[in-house]
Amino acid sequence: MSLIVTGTIGIDTVHTPTAKAEEVLGGSCTYFAAAASFFTQVRLVAAAGEDFRGDYQAVFKKFPNVDVDGLEVRKGSKTFRWGGKYLDDMNQRETLFTELGVLGEKPPTPPAKYRDSRFVFLANSHPSVQLDLLQSFPQRVIAVADTMNLWIESTRAELTKLLGKIDGLVVNDEEARMLTGKRNPFTAGRAILDMGPSFVVVKKGEHGCVLVHRQGLAALPAYPCEKVIDPTGAGDSFAGGMMGHLAASHTKDGRIDLPAIQQALAHGTVIASFTIESFSLDRLASLTKAEVAKRYNEFQSVVKV
Amino acid sequence: MSLIVTGTIGIDTVHTPTAKAEEVLGGSCTYFAAAASFFTQVRLVAAAGEDFRGDYQAVFKKFPNVDVDGLEVRKGSKTFRWGGKYLDDMNQRETLFTELGVLGEKPPTPPAKYRDSRFVFLANSHPSVQLDLLQSFPQRVIAVADTMNLWIESTRAELTKLLGKIDGLVVNDEEARMLTGKRNPFTAGRAILDMGPSFVVVKKGEHGCVLVHRQGLAALPAYPCEKVIDPTGAGDSFAGGMMGHLAASHTKDGRIDLPAIQQALAHGTVIASFTIESFSLDRLASLTKAEVAKRYNEFQSVVKV
Repeated sequence: MSLIVTGTIGIDTVHTPTAKAEEVLGGSCTYFAAAASFFTQVRLVAAAGEDFRGDYQAVFKKFPNVDVDGLEVRKGSKTFRWGGKYLDDMNQRETLFTELGVLGEKPPTPPAKYRDSRFVFLANSHPSVQLDLLQSFPQRVIAVADTMNLWIESTRAELTKLLGKIDGLVVNDEEARMLTGKRNPFTAGRAILDMGPSFVVVKKGEHGCVLVHRQGLAALPAYPCEKVIDPTGAGDSFAGGMMGHLAASHTKDGRIDLPAIQQALAHGTVIASFTIESFSLDRLASLTKAEVAKRYNEFQSVVKV
Repeated sequence: MSLIVTGTIGIDTVHTPTAKAEEVLGGSCTYFAAAASFFTQVRLVAAAGEDFRGDYQAVFKKFPNVDVDGLEVRKGSKTFRWGGKYLDDMNQRETLFTELGVLGEKPPTPPAKYRDSRFVFLANSHPSVQLDLLQSFPQRVIAVADTMNLWIESTRAELTKLLGKIDGLVVNDEEARMLTGKRNPFTAGRAILDMGPSFVVVKKGEHGCVLVHRQGLAALPAYPCEKVIDPTGAGDSFAGGMMGHLAASHTKDGRIDLPAIQQALAHGTVIASFTIESFSLDRLASLTKAEVAKRYNEFQSVVKV
């Protein structure tokens, strides 16, 4: 089932307590698409600048399931750049700089051939841009969005409108709290269901995730990771793995119900656990489907009730 | 299989953001024993003062599986009292006062008839007291202990000696970090295994728990609780449910391996989720085995990989 992601391409500079990566490939839809590609074909809609060199583009070639025809490389523009620094415990980070570049220009236009996309993920962006993009996929079966504190605080009306039109929302615990004023992720999730979506996934980083769905609740711990090199992209990889698995399993049996999403969350968790083992997409680029299956089996042994 | 717990009886005064309970029954071995009693018979060794009135003692009658012959009520002594206040998010608390009472006197002596106890849980106490008590149970199959920041900081040598003699340790994430200097609970758990135990359970409160066992790892989220009245005793109830289930299942099939402990953790999680629905032992006192079984089934649906 055709999966599409709209979001950002970024050039990231990341400092961790023990290492540094300069000007490496990043961005929400990059991590999402790479992660999803282990389960299904995925289309990508994003914009980059003319500084988006061949070696960045070459990374996508390592993920043959990612269709980059929707990647606009704009002459005279600059790619979005982000610099961040992780603190000692790797659970907190500071933004060192952001250079909006193409993100300050008009949003990318999805190619006409993508109109038939059925599974839609709107990675974090201005809610009005997300709303516009949503209209580009009239045959969608399911639309899921991410958002962030900036939009929750500054564009509440547009975000509320978006929430009325999507099926699922993926946020972290802090965003869920900001959006609803509720600290408990289940209570916050229920409050978000009242705003429109049928399900909400609340990401809790090293503490896993919870799902609040009209049909019931789910909760998962994170995969036990002791070797964390760089957490950047974990959340987007998680969402990509989740949506990729959901799209792939839907092709088989047509389900997007609570149990199908639970299974998808477990696969998102597994993919995210690989992402954080390296800077940028290095680990995902060398990852095999056999390794994903092996770790999923391990995760099943680790999480037994 | 006979289970015994040594620990404290307390008279607690608890303030939460919305309510208050004054001079209610508490203490580590109280919560532990009540929780364990849903799975097996449990013996209790603890001391109280002559202010430990009949209405406190009557609470134990609601748990017919708890054998209180090891409860010493001492004339002229006062029961341990604790006052605490939970902050707005209920995950942090301040101690308002502690009155040691009998905890400042000699430890209780286990009745001779308890010498044949096979499953031993040493709730938080001075490690020298825990070591002494351990010697009282020469036929033990498994000994598990709890500890706290005070002992980690002030009685390291005695604690190290204890760790060399027990099979399992149950601590919270902060204690695991303090004991090992490692922030990651799995890394901390491995470091604790090097000190002697075969397994370590790291409790993470609302984020569930992890298990580091010589045979492998496990992780569980907490049961989804939205109605938290008072978190006091959650950790002790968790340990009680875990040890109670382990002792009960061992009677059936003789196992105390990784899968048996995983199953026990899930049942500890379920019991703890009831404890926090009320002050003191109120919810546990009205709890039925059928409710425990129902919630365990719900937990299985919530946590699916």
